[in-house]
Amino acid sequence: MFMHNKNLMYTVRVSEPDPKLASLMLEQFGGPQGELAAAMRYFTQGIADEDPGRKDMLIDIATEELSHLEVIGSIVAMLTKGAKGKLAEGAEATADLYANITQGSGSHTLQLLYGGGPALVNSAGQLWTGGYIDSIGEPTADLRSNIAAESRAKIIYERLINITNDPGVKDALTFLMTREVAHQKMFEKALYSIENNFPPGKLPGNPDYTDKYYNMSTGPGDARGPWNQGDQWEFVEVKANQKPVNGGDGNPTVRLAAEEMKAIEQAAMRTKSRTDLDPVTGADLGAGPGAGKTKKVTTKG
Amino acid sequence: MFMHNKNLMYTVRVSEPDPKLASLMLEQFGGPQGELAAAMRYFTQGIADEDPGRKDMLIDIATEELSHLEVIGSIVAMLTKGAKGKLAEGAEATADLYANITQGSGSHTLQLLYGGGPALVNSAGQLWTGGYIDSIGEPTADLRSNIAAESRAKIIYERLINITNDPGVKDALTFLMTREVAHQKMFEKALYSIENNFPPGKLPGNPDYTDKYYNMSTGPGDARGPWNQGDQWEFVEVKANQKPVNGGDGNPTVRLAAEEMKAIEQAAMRTKSRTDLDPVTGADLGAGPGAGKTKKVTTKG
Amino acid sequence: MFMHNKNLMYTVRVSEPDPKLASLMLEQFGGPQGELAAAMRYFTQGIADEDPGRKDMLIDIATEELSHLEVIGSIVAMLTKGAKGKLAEGAEATADLYANITQGSGSHTLQLLYGGGPALVNSAGQLWTGGYIDSIGEPTADLRSNIAAESRAKIIYERLINITNDPGVKDALTFLMTREVAHQKMFEKALYSIENNFPPGKLPGNPDYTDKYYNMSTGPGDARGPWNQGDQWEFVEVKANQKPVNGGDGNPTVRLAAEEMKAIEQAAMRTKSRTDLDPVTGADLGAGPGAGKTKKVTTKG
Amino acid sequence: MFMHNKNLMYTVRVSEPDPKLASLMLEQFGGPQGELAAAMRYFTQGIADEDPGRKDMLIDIATEELSHLEVIGSIVAMLTKGAKGKLAEGAEATADLYANITQGSGSHTLQLLYGGGPALVNSAGQLWTGGYIDSIGEPTADLRSNIAAESRAKIIYERLINITNDPGVKDALTFLMTREVAHQKMFEKALYSIENNFPPGKLPGNPDYTDKYYNMSTGPGDARGPWNQGDQWEFVEVKANQKPVNGGDGNPTVRLAAEEMKAIEQAAMRTKSRTDLDPVTGADLGAGPGAGKTKKVTTKG
Amino acid sequence: MFMHNKNLMYTVRVSEPDPKLASLMLEQFGGPQGELAAAMRYFTQGIADEDPGRKDMLIDIATEELSHLEVIGSIVAMLTKGAKGKLAEGAEATADLYANITQGSGSHTLQLLYGGGPALVNSAGQLWTGGYIDSIGEPTADLRSNIAAESRAKIIYERLINITNDPGVKDALTFLMTREVAHQKMFEKALYSIENNFPPGKLPGNPDYTDKYYNMSTGPGDARGPWNQGDQWEFVEVKANQKPVNGGDGNPTVRLAAEEMKAIEQAAMRTKSRTDLDPVTGADLGAGPGAGKTKKVTTKG
Amino acid sequence: MFMHNKNLMYTVRVSEPDPKLASLMLEQFGGPQGELAAAMRYFTQGIADEDPGRKDMLIDIATEELSHLEVIGSIVAMLTKGAKGKLAEGAEATADLYANITQGSGSHTLQLLYGGGPALVNSAGQLWTGGYIDSIGEPTADLRSNIAAESRAKIIYERLINITNDPGVKDALTFLMTREVAHQKMFEKALYSIENNFPPGKLPGNPDYTDKYYNMSTGPGDARGPWNQGDQWEFVEVKANQKPVNGGDGNPTVRLAAEEMKAIEQAAMRTKSRTDLDPVTGADLGAGPGAGKTKKVTTKG
Repeated sequence: MFMHNKNLMYTVRVSEPDPKLASLMLEQFGGPQGELAAAMRYFTQGIADEDPGRKDMLIDIATEELSHLEVIGSIVAMLTKGAKGKLAEGAEATADLYANITQGSGSHTLQLLYGGGPALVNSAGQLWTGGYIDSIGEPTADLRSNIAAESRAKIIYERLINITNDPGVKDALTFLMTREVAHQKMFEKALYSIENNFPPGKLPGNPDYTDKYYNMSTGPGDARGPWNQGDQWEFVEVKANQKPVNGGDGNPTVRLAAEEMKAIEQAAMRTKSRTDLDPVTGADLGAGPGAGKTKKVTTKG
Repeated sequence: MFMHNKNLMYTVRVSEPDPKLASLMLEQFGGPQGELAAAMRYFTQGIADEDPGRKDMLIDIATEELSHLEVIGSIVAMLTKGAKGKLAEGAEATADLYANITQGSGSHTLQLLYGGGPALVNSAGQLWTGGYIDSIGEPTADLRSNIAAESRAKIIYERLINITNDPGVKDALTFLMTREVAHQKMFEKALYSIENNFPPGKLPGNPDYTDKYYNMSTGPGDARGPWNQGDQWEFVEVKANQKPVNGGDGNPTVRLAAEEMKAIEQAAMRTKSRTDLDPVTGADLGAGPGAGKTKKVTTKG
Repeated sequence: MFMHNKNLMYTVRVSEPDPKLASLMLEQFGGPQGELAAAMRYFTQGIADEDPGRKDMLIDIATEELSHLEVIGSIVAMLTKGAKGKLAEGAEATADLYANITQGSGSHTLQLLYGGGPALVNSAGQLWTGGYIDSIGEPTADLRSNIAAESRAKIIYERLINITNDPGVKDALTFLMTREVAHQKMFEKALYSIENNFPPGKLPGNPDYTDKYYNMSTGPGDARGPWNQGDQWEFVEVKANQKPVNGGDGNPTVRLAAEEMKAIEQAAMRTKSRTDLDPVTGADLGAGPGAGKTKKVTTKG
Repeated sequence: MFMHNKNLMYTVRVSEPDPKLASLMLEQFGGPQGELAAAMRYFTQGIADEDPGRKDMLIDIATEELSHLEVIGSIVAMLTKGAKGKLAEGAEATADLYANITQGSGSHTLQLLYGGGPALVNSAGQLWTGGYIDSIGEPTADLRSNIAAESRAKIIYERLINITNDPGVKDALTFLMTREVAHQKMFEKALYSIENNFPPGKLPGNPDYTDKYYNMSTGPGDARGPWNQGDQWEFVEVKANQKPVNGGDGNPTVRLAAEEMKAIEQAAMRTKSRTDLDPVTGADLGAGPGAGKTKKVTTKG
Repeated sequence: MFMHNKNLMYTVRVSEPDPKLASLMLEQFGGPQGELAAAMRYFTQGIADEDPGRKDMLIDIATEELSHLEVIGSIVAMLTKGAKGKLAEGAEATADLYANITQGSGSHTLQLLYGGGPALVNSAGQLWTGGYIDSIGEPTADLRSNIAAESRAKIIYERLINITNDPGVKDALTFLMTREVAHQKMFEKALYSIENNFPPGKLPGNPDYTDKYYNMSTGPGDARGPWNQGDQWEFVEVKANQKPVNGGDGNPTVRLAAEEMKAIEQAAMRTKSRTDLDPVTGADLGAGPGAGKTKKVTTKG
Repeated sequence: MFMHNKNLMYTVRVSEPDPKLASLMLEQFGGPQGELAAAMRYFTQGIADEDPGRKDMLIDIATEELSHLEVIGSIVAMLTKGAKGKLAEGAEATADLYANITQGSGSHTLQLLYGGGPALVNSAGQLWTGGYIDSIGEPTADLRSNIAAESRAKIIYERLINITNDPGVKDALTFLMTREVAHQKMFEKALYSIENNFPPGKLPGNPDYTDKYYNMSTGPGDARGPWNQGDQWEFVEVKANQKPVNGGDGNPTVRLAAEEMKAIEQAAMRTKSRTDLDPVTGADLGAGPGAGKTKKVTTKG
C-alpha cells in the first residue's frame, strides 16, 4: 500500500512565477519521459514480478518516481501561481491577461484548460497515453527498457536545465536528473545479475540469420564499424535484384479451399483494373477543357 | 531515397487461412513492438545523426525493418485471404460469416473495418500511435532505447511462435525474431563504440544524490541485491517522518508580486472550505430520509 | 513524498487463474473509471489547491487510490499467473495455448503484449489516456467531477461483481466498491463546505438566459418534469422557424479589412460552385453506360 | 431525427479577425469541456434511457449543445476569416503571413492544417477523443457526470471571457456560459427526482468500510474537516507498518495447478537475479576506465 | 440551430437482443467510417464555407448524418436491451452473465463500461478520435474527402449487412447504406460544379515533375496500366544508383553560423562512434562466458 | 523488400536554420496529410490487393512517399541543426536558448522533447495516429480515399510554400507538392480503369432512397444546385413534424424475453424520475440562502 508524507522529497524554492516556463516543465510531468510514465513502468512490472529482490527494487523506484512527480508538479504549480489567481478572478486588465498567456509556448492551454494546475500533458499539450509504457512482463527485456527510459529522462532534464535561469528550479531539476542516473545504475545491476540475459527470452534464434548484417542502404557514405565488421559479422551486400534470403520465389502463398478461392476470384474480377484502356477520369473532368493536356472525353464502351 | 524490390525479404508460405491468428499477428504489424515502430524509431534517428557510420547503420536497419513490415503484413494478408473474399462477396451463409469473424479474438474488426488487409493496429485493435516512438536525438539515449526495443520485439515474436501451429508462419516468425537479436547486437556495438557513454549527455549529476538508494517500500519482503548493496551504494532507509533530502521545510515556495498575491488570496477566499460546519450534501439528499445514517437536513446560515 | 508499505491495503485471495476474467478486471486498472484515473484526478488537484484542509483530503484519497491500484493490479496478476508461465516457457501444447488466450475476451492481448502483467489499458485494450482526467483547477467544478467519478467507479465495480464467481475476487471488489461510496461522501462534504458553490466560478450569468428551458426536441413523447416546470423555469417552445434568442438575423458577422475582404472574395471566386450546370461527375463515369439512370456525358464549356 | 434551422441560436457579431483568439476558442469547440463533448455525452445517454421524461430532457439539451457548437464554431470562423483568405490565395507578403500565424498560440496549426475552419481539437491542437465522454448507462452516475461537466464548461467559458476584449465575442460567450448554468440546474433536478439516488446503483457497500476515513498522508498540514470528522466518520490513522484492513498477510495469493506452478517456477528460475554477485554492467563499460568509481571488470563465473 | 423531432428518421424494428451483434454495429456509431465522423466532417466544412449553395448542402447532409447516428445508436440500444437490464440488476446467474458478455466480440466492454448504451468507440473498443476528420478548409480537397468517405461508409454497411441475419436490422442498415450512395452523388455534383477543380488549390506544380511516373518497385510483377503508360506519362525507371531527380549530390545542406557549427561539432565529438574498436558490450556481458561466440572481455583504453 | 539509396530523391538546400519554420514543416512529416500517412495508406492497400497492376502502382507510390518522408525529414533536420547543437551542449546563454525555442510555434517541443530531430507529430505536437489511415480493403473505396488524400496533401504543401521565404525550402516543397498532383492523376486512372466502380462494392441500394435529397436545414439561405435539382433528384422538404421515411411510429423496438423484460423494468423502476416533485437539489444547497431565487428547502417524503 502507498502512504504519503507531507514533506516533498526535495524542497522546492521557485524565484518567481513564469507560466511559459511552467508549460515547458510539463514535459516531465505528463510527457513521455516524465515521472508518471516512469512510475507506472516500474509499478506495473513490480506487481507481477516473481523475483523478490527485483520486485522490491521496482516498487522502491516506482515509489520514488511518484515522489518526483510531486516535486515537478509542485514546480509547475509555483510557476503558474501568479497567473492562476489573476485569470480565475479576472484581476488584471483583459489585454494583459491575453498577452500573458499567449506569449509563445503552450501556456495558454495550461492556464485556460487546466487552470494553472499541473496536467497530464507534455509541453505541447499532448495528452499522456498508456502507449508510453513499454513493460511486457519479461525481466530481461523490461530492465533494458528501464535503462533506456532513465537515460532518456536524464537528457530531457538536462535540456530543461539548459533553458532555465531560475536557480531554485535549476537546483530541483538537477536533483531529479541525478536520480535518473542513479536509477539507471540500479537497473543495470539488476539486468546483469540475471545470468544469461542475452538473448532475452528462451527461444534460440535461427543460426543462419544471427550474425548477418544486411547492407540495405547503399551509395556514397556507406560505412563500416564494429556493428558490421569483425569476426562475428557476415556482411551481406543487398543488390538491386536481391533474392529472398531463404530462397523461394519471394511471393507469399496460402492454400485456399475451393469456395474461398472462388470468392476471392469473384472479388478480384469485380474490382479488376482494365489496363488496356485510358479512361477519362474525374481529374480530367475537373481540369476543364482548356487545362494542360486536353483529354478527349469519351465514355467507355 | 527508398526503392522496392518485389521479392519479399523472406518467402512466406502459409498453410491455410486463419483470421483469428491473423489478428494476433497484427501485434507485430501495427503494435507497439511491431515493425513500423521499429522502422520509424531508427529512421527518425538516422536522418538527424551527425556520425556517418552510425547514421548508415540506422538507415540500414530501418530499411530492413520496413522489409520485415512487408513480411508480417503478407502473413496477415495470407491468413485473411479466405474470409476476405467471402465477406466482400457475401459468398457464404450469413450465420457462418457471423460465426467466423466473432470466434474469440479481434478478427471481427480486422475483417469488418479493414477488409482483411493488414492495418496499423495491435491485436486488440488499438490504433498505432507516435507515442510508441521514443527517439530523442541523443545517441547515448537513443541507442539504449533501440537495444531495449529489440529485446521487447524478440519476446513478442517468441510468444507468437509459442501459440502458432502453422509451420510456414512459425518459420517466418523465427526469421523475424532472429533478426531482432542480430539488431540488438549491432546497437550494442554502436553504443559501446561511443566512449564515455555513461551517464548519457553532458551535465554531471549532483554527487550528493548519485549513489544513494532510497528504500521507499518497507516491510516484509524488503530485500538487498547488487542494485543497493556494496561499496558504491549508500542505502537510505526512508522513515515514516522522512524529511526532504535537501533539508528545508518540505513545502514548495514562490515569491509572488503583491497583485498576484492579492488575486490568489481572493480566489482562495472564494473557494475556502468551512471546516467548522457539517453541511447537508447532495448525497444526503439523495440517500433519502430512511437511508443509512439519517442526517438532519438544515440549511446553512 | 510517497512511501510504500509491502502489505496490500486489502489482502487478496484468488481461487484460481482465469485470464479471461483478468482482462475484464483491467477496466478498473487502466480504464476510464479505474484507479489510476482516480489517483491522478485527485493528485493533480491536490498539488495546486490553496485550501489546506481540502488539499490534505485530496492527497489522502489520491494515496488510497494508488493503494487500490495495487490491489486491482494484484488481482490481475493472480488471475493470469497460470497462463503467464506457460506462454513464457512454451510449457503447453501450442494448440492449447492458442485456445486458452483466444476464448472470447481481450485476454490474448493481455497475454501476448503485456505478458500477463497488469497494463494501462481497459478491458478492450484501449490505452489509458490523459483525456480521462477532467481536473480544471477550480474546486467548485473539480469536486463535482470527483463526486461524479466516484459514482461511475462504484457502478463499474458493481458490474464486475455481478459477473464474478470467484469469492476472493468478489470480496476484494466489494471492498473497492465500498470505498468509492465513502469517497463520494467525502467529496460531497468538501463541496458543500464551500459556501455559495453554485454557480461555480465568479462571473454571474446573463439573467435573460438563466431560467429558460428550450424545448429543442418535439413530437410524441415530449414530457415535463421538475427540470422544466414550476416557478423557476420559463418553458420556451422552439418552433420550426425559430429566430435567434438574442434577435438579429441569425448570421455570424465580422468586419474585414479591405485586403482581407479581397482575399476572401478571391478564394470564394476560385472555388465557386456553378449552380446553373449539371456537370458530369466521377460517379457518372464510374457508373458505366448501362448503370441506373444513364447520364448524357457532356463536357462543360 | 435532427433538423437544422439556418438561424444561429444566438446571433454572433465579431469585431475583427484575430486568429490567435480563434485558436483559444477551439477549447470549447473541440476541447474536453467543449460543446461536442457535451452534446455527445447527453445524446448517448438519451438514446438508451428508459425513463421518458429524462430521455426527453437529455435529447433537448443535447440538441441545444449542438446549436452551441454551431455558435462557437461560427465565432472561430469569423475570427479566422481574414487570415484564411490571405493564406489560401497567397495574398500577403510571405514574411507577414509567417509572422501572423506564429505569433504565440496554436494559430499556426489552425491555419495551416485546418485552413482556418473550426476543427475538432482543443486550443493546443490535441485531437478530440471519445475518452472525454464519461456516459456509463446508469442515470444516478450519468446525471452526476453531467452536473460536473456543466460546471467545468461554465468555468472554461468564464476564463475565455476574462481574456477576450472583443465585445461581440464576449457577449456570445456570456450566453453560452449562462446556458451551462441553466443546464446544470436541470440535471440537478433530474438527479434528485430519482428517489434514493445515493449510493448509485443497486449493490450495498460492505458496512465495515463505508464510514472510515483513512489518513494516508501524514505530517505537518494534516487537517480535519467535515469530510473526516463528526459522527459519521471513523478516522483511521495509517501507520508506518499499517496492516491490511481485512487482516491476512498482505500478499495476493492464487491456487495454481501443478503444471502452472511448474511453468511459473521455470520462468522464475530463468530470470532469477543473483543477489550474491556484483556484476559488471553496461553502465560500467560505458563510464570508461577513468570515470567515477572505477569498477574492476570481471566476467561472472 | 439544430432541432430534434422525436421520430427516428427510419423506424427501427429489431427482432431480438444480441449484444455481440451490437458491438459490431458500433463500427458505424463510433468508428472511423461511422455517422459521427460523417456529420462532423460536413459540419466543420459547412460552417466556414463561403459558397451559399455548397454550405447549405453540407449542413443538410451533416444534419441527416446526425439523424443516422440516432438510427444506428437506437439499433445498438435495442440489441443490448436484454443484457443491459440483467447486468444492471444482477438478474441472472453470475456464470450466465459472464458467459453472455464474453462470447467472442467486444460485447464485454460495451456492457461493462458503457452499460449497454451506444458509445463513441468502434467494434474493437477503440475510442473515437478527431483524427478521423480530414476537413482542411479547401472545397476542391474537402469534397473529394467527402466522396471517399461516403464510399468507405457504403462498404462498411455492406459488410455489416452480410453478417446480419436479423431482418429488421438488415432493413435499417440497407437504408443507411443507400443514403451513403446518394450523398456520394451529391458531393460529386458539388465537386464538378466547381470549374477547374483540378489540380486543387491555386499554385501550379513544377512542370518537370507533373507527368513522370517513377518506377520505384522493380522485379517480377512490374506492370503497366493507364496510370503509367500512354502519352501523358513519362515512365522513369529508378535504378540501383539513382541520382536525385534535381541533380546535386543528394545530401541535405544548410548554412550554419560559426557558433552553431561549433556547437554541433562539439555534440558530434561527444557522441562520436569509434569505428576502430570492437568494444565489449552489454550483450557480451549478458550472453555469459559459455554462450555462442565467446568474446574476450577487455576494457577500452 | 525495401532498399535504400543514400541519395535523397531531391537534393535539399536550406539557407539557414529556423526552428520555428521546422516545427511547421512537421505537418508533412508526422501530420495527418503528411508523407508517412501517405506511404502507409498505399502500402497497406498494396500488400493485400489481388490486381497485379494496381498492386504494383500502390507499392511504387508508397515507396516514393517514403522517399518524400526522407526529404521533408531532412528539411526539418537542417532547419533545427543550429539550435540542436546549442541546446545539447548548453552552448548559448540560457536566456537566449529560452527565448529561441519559445518564440511562437511548437519549436519548444521539437527541441526539448525530440532534440531537434524530425518526429512523428504534426505542427502542434499531436502524435501521429493510425486513425489517419483510411484503407478498408475495397479498391473502389480505397482509390477514392487516395485521390482525396493527395488533394489534401497538395493544399498543405501550398500553404507551407505560401509562408516560407527560404528559396531552398520553397523549391523542395514545390517538388513535393507537384508529385501529389501526379499521384492524384495516377489514382484517378486506376479508379476509372475499374469498370462499374460506382456505387462502390457489390450490394445495390434500396431504390426508394437512392435519389432523394432531404432538405434537413431550412430557412433563409436555402439553396438549390446540381446536387439537389434536375431530373435525377427528388427534393424532399423536411417538415417540422416529419414522419419516418419508412413509415411506422418512429420508435425503435425489440422483442424481449420475459426475464429480460422483467430486468429492464426493474432497472427502470429503480432509476425512475418523479415528475410530480420539485426536489431540493445540490445546486439549491450550493447556491446559499441568499442567492438568486430562494428555494424552500424541504426533504422528500
